[in-house]
Amino acid sequence: MRARDVSIPMSTVTEDLPAREAAKVLAAQDLPGLVVVDGRGRPLTVLAGTQVLRMALPLYCQEDPALARVVDEAAADVILDGIGERTVADLLPKSRPDLPAVSADATLLEVASVMARSNVPLVAVVDKDKVMTGAITLDGLLDHLLHT
Amino acid sequence: MRARDVSIPMSTVTEDLPAREAAKVLAAQDLPGLVVVDGRGRPLTVLAGTQVLRMALPLYCQEDPALARVVDEAAADVILDGIGERTVADLLPKSRPDLPAVSADATLLEVASVMARSNVPLVAVVDKDKVMTGAITLDGLLDHLLHT
Repeated sequence: MRARDVSIPMSTVTEDLPAREAAKVLAAQDLPGLVVVDGRGRPLTVLAGTQVLRMALPLYCQEDPALARVVDEAAADVILDGIGERTVADLLPKSRPDLPAVSADATLLEVASVMARSNVPLVAVVDKDKVMTGAITLDGLLDHLLHT
Repeated sequence: MRARDVSIPMSTVTEDLPAREAAKVLAAQDLPGLVVVDGRGRPLTVLAGTQVLRMALPLYCQEDPALARVVDEAAADVILDGIGERTVADLLPKSRPDLPAVSADATLLEVASVMARSNVPLVAVVDKDKVMTGAITLDGLLDHLLHT
């Protein structure tokens, strides 16, 4: 079995996308992060959902979550207001995590090795031009390996 | 809306569980990590799936994934052999990530704030004895906040 057999389609975002739109893409998929690609579809990095929350929430909430409890405003409004007019690029941390990539004919052991080196439970599958064709999640990989 | 309305049941493991069993629990759920609880069901930490791979795979695979490609053995066998007879406790990193926890009546903004402080896209929901009753994922939280 090869990477192509385990690869699934995955939504991606570009750096210039409004972060509010990106938050909706993030919510719509069952993954804790978003794959960010360049204009040609080549994977650049992963935007973690926890990073989106960190950038969106007022500092007083993060420093003392008990204070968040007394805010008399819907959480969605606070988060969307906090994101404001920023783009995906604005939300990315300065040190961007690498999104590892493999070719479609990588073996599953190769995929597991690439994933083990990163802290990201996701590996991009790319073609010969480094354009992303899909991705392999940790769950998907383990499902195939352990037949659950 | 409160934490209890967004909380979902979640499989947990204890530190003394054989890591092979834990890998199967990990594969069976759609989450990139496993909640580790003590004997009374109180959350201790999260075991990331990437950490399981790091502990299971031979070092030569991780240092050079291209070498993994030439291993003439099924990936599942390599991983299960690599885990060997170790337990969950053996696989946990020395610096264990905290799993944040909230009470069932926490507001969603409070949940978001607690999650923003951590790098874990998961918050445990606990009762008054700190026993875990469920968990809130980043996806679940955003689904409710952004109505996707």
